[in-house]
Amino acid sequence: MRRTVYSADHEAFRESVREFVAREADPHAERFAEERLIGPQVWREAGRQGLLGLEIPEEYGGSAAGDYRFNAVLHEELAAHGMALASGFGIHFDIVAPYLVDLTTEEQKRRWLPGFCSGELVTAIGMTEPGGGSDLAALTTGAVRDGDHWVLNGSKTFITNGIQAGLVVVAARTSPGKKGITLFGVEAGMPGFERGRKLDKMGQPEADTAELFFRDVRVPAANVIGPVDGGFVAMMERLPQERLGAAVANLAHAWSALGETLAYVRERRAFGQPVGSFQYNKFTLADLVTELEVTRAYVDQCVAAHAGRELSAVEAAKAKLWSSEVQWRVLDACVQLFGGYGYMREHRVARAWADARVTRIWAGSSEIMREIVGRDLGL
Amino acid sequence: MRRTVYSADHEAFRESVREFVAREADPHAERFAEERLIGPQVWREAGRQGLLGLEIPEEYGGSAAGDYRFNAVLHEELAAHGMALASGFGIHFDIVAPYLVDLTTEEQKRRWLPGFCSGELVTAIGMTEPGGGSDLAALTTGAVRDGDHWVLNGSKTFITNGIQAGLVVVAARTSPGKKGITLFGVEAGMPGFERGRKLDKMGQPEADTAELFFRDVRVPAANVIGPVDGGFVAMMERLPQERLGAAVANLAHAWSALGETLAYVRERRAFGQPVGSFQYNKFTLADLVTELEVTRAYVDQCVAAHAGRELSAVEAAKAKLWSSEVQWRVLDACVQLFGGYGYMREHRVARAWADARVTRIWAGSSEIMREIVGRDLGL
Amino acid sequence: MRRTVYSADHEAFRESVREFVAREADPHAERFAEERLIGPQVWREAGRQGLLGLEIPEEYGGSAAGDYRFNAVLHEELAAHGMALASGFGIHFDIVAPYLVDLTTEEQKRRWLPGFCSGELVTAIGMTEPGGGSDLAALTTGAVRDGDHWVLNGSKTFITNGIQAGLVVVAARTSPGKKGITLFGVEAGMPGFERGRKLDKMGQPEADTAELFFRDVRVPAANVIGPVDGGFVAMMERLPQERLGAAVANLAHAWSALGETLAYVRERRAFGQPVGSFQYNKFTLADLVTELEVTRAYVDQCVAAHAGRELSAVEAAKAKLWSSEVQWRVLDACVQLFGGYGYMREHRVARAWADARVTRIWAGSSEIMREIVGRDLGL
Amino acid sequence: MRRTVYSADHEAFRESVREFVAREADPHAERFAEERLIGPQVWREAGRQGLLGLEIPEEYGGSAAGDYRFNAVLHEELAAHGMALASGFGIHFDIVAPYLVDLTTEEQKRRWLPGFCSGELVTAIGMTEPGGGSDLAALTTGAVRDGDHWVLNGSKTFITNGIQAGLVVVAARTSPGKKGITLFGVEAGMPGFERGRKLDKMGQPEADTAELFFRDVRVPAANVIGPVDGGFVAMMERLPQERLGAAVANLAHAWSALGETLAYVRERRAFGQPVGSFQYNKFTLADLVTELEVTRAYVDQCVAAHAGRELSAVEAAKAKLWSSEVQWRVLDACVQLFGGYGYMREHRVARAWADARVTRIWAGSSEIMREIVGRDLGL
Repeated sequence: MRRTVYSADHEAFRESVREFVAREADPHAERFAEERLIGPQVWREAGRQGLLGLEIPEEYGGSAAGDYRFNAVLHEELAAHGMALASGFGIHFDIVAPYLVDLTTEEQKRRWLPGFCSGELVTAIGMTEPGGGSDLAALTTGAVRDGDHWVLNGSKTFITNGIQAGLVVVAARTSPGKKGITLFGVEAGMPGFERGRKLDKMGQPEADTAELFFRDVRVPAANVIGPVDGGFVAMMERLPQERLGAAVANLAHAWSALGETLAYVRERRAFGQPVGSFQYNKFTLADLVTELEVTRAYVDQCVAAHAGRELSAVEAAKAKLWSSEVQWRVLDACVQLFGGYGYMREHRVARAWADARVTRIWAGSSEIMREIVGRDLGL
Repeated sequence: MRRTVYSADHEAFRESVREFVAREADPHAERFAEERLIGPQVWREAGRQGLLGLEIPEEYGGSAAGDYRFNAVLHEELAAHGMALASGFGIHFDIVAPYLVDLTTEEQKRRWLPGFCSGELVTAIGMTEPGGGSDLAALTTGAVRDGDHWVLNGSKTFITNGIQAGLVVVAARTSPGKKGITLFGVEAGMPGFERGRKLDKMGQPEADTAELFFRDVRVPAANVIGPVDGGFVAMMERLPQERLGAAVANLAHAWSALGETLAYVRERRAFGQPVGSFQYNKFTLADLVTELEVTRAYVDQCVAAHAGRELSAVEAAKAKLWSSEVQWRVLDACVQLFGGYGYMREHRVARAWADARVTRIWAGSSEIMREIVGRDLGL
Repeated sequence: MRRTVYSADHEAFRESVREFVAREADPHAERFAEERLIGPQVWREAGRQGLLGLEIPEEYGGSAAGDYRFNAVLHEELAAHGMALASGFGIHFDIVAPYLVDLTTEEQKRRWLPGFCSGELVTAIGMTEPGGGSDLAALTTGAVRDGDHWVLNGSKTFITNGIQAGLVVVAARTSPGKKGITLFGVEAGMPGFERGRKLDKMGQPEADTAELFFRDVRVPAANVIGPVDGGFVAMMERLPQERLGAAVANLAHAWSALGETLAYVRERRAFGQPVGSFQYNKFTLADLVTELEVTRAYVDQCVAAHAGRELSAVEAAKAKLWSSEVQWRVLDACVQLFGGYGYMREHRVARAWADARVTRIWAGSSEIMREIVGRDLGL
Repeated sequence: MRRTVYSADHEAFRESVREFVAREADPHAERFAEERLIGPQVWREAGRQGLLGLEIPEEYGGSAAGDYRFNAVLHEELAAHGMALASGFGIHFDIVAPYLVDLTTEEQKRRWLPGFCSGELVTAIGMTEPGGGSDLAALTTGAVRDGDHWVLNGSKTFITNGIQAGLVVVAARTSPGKKGITLFGVEAGMPGFERGRKLDKMGQPEADTAELFFRDVRVPAANVIGPVDGGFVAMMERLPQERLGAAVANLAHAWSALGETLAYVRERRAFGQPVGSFQYNKFTLADLVTELEVTRAYVDQCVAAHAGRELSAVEAAKAKLWSSEVQWRVLDACVQLFGGYGYMREHRVARAWADARVTRIWAGSSEIMREIVGRDLGL
């Protein structure tokens, strides 16, 4: 069905992103995986092309698109390449950006945003902790005021861009109680800020995911982002955009894998006919493409709503929940349709399968999403 | 999420349908089930209120709304009452109507349409045969030209409105080959046209479903609908609307049952707490409401596309497939959430469960839909 | 696979039950459904053939088989006819019997067991209450001692054999707290013991299920079954047998429906080939028959264990949970494979579908079973 | 439930295998994964302990257990360590062994079996080809007689033990038609026999899987295994044992992962309680443990039947189909229950998840199994 959410402007932007991906990412996919990193040159090229500053005012180097649909297009085209590119860049342009635009001082903006836009200052956000997962009430990283500084102690884990980040927005407890959380801009090189080894994940090897340690890190008060004890509310307000972005990427990633699989099963023959022409496989693919289209209608609707500042947290949770479950069903079936080749890393679909497994877990697991949706039902 | 497909006009029409249902159907639901019929007075009342002639030109008594979204609203509000009302009326206002408007002669229009609009002439459509199901190539009811008449022989089954219909659009083979099919307007009282007993279905007892028999029925040539041997194409062209209507009704029916179930599980207590507050039940309901909303976004998009004459047969097949599968998951879960009461006919949700089971079968089974979607993938 | 749990003796007994079913039940299935009862003559014929007293000592008219495998064979052959026959008789010979054998006084045995064996005294058990479901702590039917009598007040619902029962084993609260429950033998004709109308269920119309009311029923102390306040333990001890019997019946019922469906899809043709030869249908049936065989291996193992008095409550819960879920998947697929005919009451598979829906609910719902199994995991 | 298939002798053997695994495999799991190989010292140690020659006559160094249940125990204990160990050894002791015992000449036995038993001669079997998958009719590797030799050309892929194997049983076409296949013992060092790089799989990195190439390999006639053109029948006869072995391993692997997960969710806390005590998780685990136990009953029954030479190909297909599907549901849920940690390679459950994905594909995919089962239903 013709998608109605995007206009010609968005489609033109899509073309430019596609061209970027085809030039800077697709030919280097194997290298990214071997190096286990999408390195600085890709970030800078993205910056040069204006992909990183969609939400950033022009005076600081951004394009201030002011229209979430550009973010969504960017998510889609990056995820069509792979989840790791989508998530590494996504954390930066779509998740960290609103904090740095809405909550920062003029001085902070001037200090951080130009590099943010050029790709020279890669950013990350530090919420999740080793012991706590999605439970902000259990957050134990703490900061204590000491003169012009805050002294930060604790650790974070599963931090996307954790190795490359020049700036990490860290959530730390500054007062007792669930909501007593403040956000700090922790910069590379601050004494006591250390990065663990790159985490060895089942998928997304090229994603730069790390554990971060803070040992008596003296963070200048000038690096507090937003109000002291205002972090909880700030994060809650921004979670819907994070989840919608995840949903958009999930679907684009699944479409991409399904497209490759369709091409494969039309060609690959067994028992004298194309593998895809066996009725069981045909019906499996019919179900999957149907479910993807159905879910896309919803996610597109959410994108339009969010562009109009109408998307609720519950709607975003539904989009995140459903898209990641659908994505998984698609990817797992794609592997099966590829047969033994679907298990070989050299095939994109195999890597995509492993890459996709985390989306039911990160950014709020499917169980957390169900809790949010269920609570909204008055249950 | 705010639905964007309907305007204030549609919502005003929805109110009037709702008022009709609340007055003419809801209070009599038990009686309909006991009598195993939604009788002529309901049809006439619907006619009086202008619900039946949405697609019929004004000169013949219709309102010529010229906007499929009114049909969709009508489907939704009827299905919220029950599948039987939605299907009995739906066959008439949404499935038969296009044949009688697009393919008929002026004389036929004058003869049939006023009664069609007033509810005095209930209509049905006769495609399915006892031996053939969805396979039009296997259609064996045949008509042979004899002077000014055609002599019709054969039988049809699972015909909604079969008992009450004053006019049945019957597909009969007039030439060899899959496409050699002609449509005939068979009228009540024609010698040799007999109705079998009302079929005893597992659900929808109030729906008037019958087997029809044609034994040397002499149908005047003036009752041929559309071109001789033009029936196959005529039916193919109209199947998408039938399937979209089914999809719209499926979802509205499921929403209605889910609404009742939510009300129940918030009140009903076990082991000291509301049944719906048990996490497993809460998560089940969260999944169902999510899936319903996601599917609604797609079906709404299809309604908008069809209103703009852009809906393809494959898109309609996807809508029909997915909506009926989702509807079933919802209804089956609703029964489980009601516990033993979900198995008692006195509870609406129990009846709705049995009513819903047929939607994966009729109007092209889920397997046929998968075949259509799969073929469209080039498989 | 050759089943190893049954010996030649069990198979000989199976033959005699099969012969009984073929003679006394199968030819009358339509009549049972119309009369909405499996009437007294069937009970007496079963008694005459020695089917009802498998657990009853010979001196009271039983056969004291002393081997649960005979019970299991009886469940299987009754359920192959239909769930209603299996459940009506099952309550009597398999569920009530242990109470009347293990817990009764000599006088009670003499009073009740001969009629129990002959089929003249149909029995029922009254646990479930309108407000309480599976939650014994919420049991509100109460009995208060008054001289030589207990005065019983309250109501029970979903009572199988409720209309015909001459003796109902009723659980009533006699002390505060979850365990303060006593069992009473309430006999037909006791003043204040009334039966509600026969409940109108979605399936099993021939099963005799009712609500029972007790209004100041004076039950003689001689009708107390087992120790005062001993009912909770007595019921807990006997639930595994009830659940195992349910599991055995579930599977036999599903096998029976699958057999009919296989016969149908081998014959019924569409698009030029047998319906069952379409790969999607073939694979669906392959999955179902596999799952049934897999589950039968487990249930057979449970039957053997129970015959050796080794079956735990958790194992019985697993058997009940899994068999009813599998049964449902089978029955729902059978309907789909029959197409429109699967929705017509005249086809056994349609009735079997509706009959099966309750097994995930009764005798402890699937959710209760999961709770039991989960608790056993230390969760 | 107490398993009845194994006697004290089998359990004693299990203890010795367990001890082997604890000593020779478990402490080195990380190293195996890093080296991407389970190296020769492990094979020799297994040989020393008598694990490899269960099916081999004593005169050639085996233990000639003559009881498939020892094979099954060995599969279980190896798979509890990991799928790669189970599959590498399994190919050798359970799949290749019957060929080398049943079909070889006395001279071949003396040449190959002692090294087979000692672990010095690792074996593999070459059936699958790059273009053909499960379709033996499409087998293109061919051998042409040339004096005392056969000249072998073609390639095989997905060959477990492909790198280390000193002897590969290769299926090659020697006559036209599906059945014109002969088995050849191709030995390391034969000119023209080359191994491709080790395949980079999504899981089981320590398994030694390779593509093999045969370019004018001159295989002495003395290396023909079994009758010329007898390979098809020989393979068909041995597939059930391969599939049963796969089933046994699948379940043991899943039980092992479930055990770890249960331990984890009892300890790991979120939102103030153990993760496993959330009802949704508890019920998920209850379903999984139930399904595993149910499936184990069936597989145990199959093992007993195979030990008695009564297992049919269809029963083996059912065991393979169901066990791999259940294994997958278990593993995928285990990852989810571990949350983010389930995606980190350092956790065994993460690696086990990726290891398990192939079992629905290899040794005849689930689709092939459904075909076998469906055909047996006469469809």
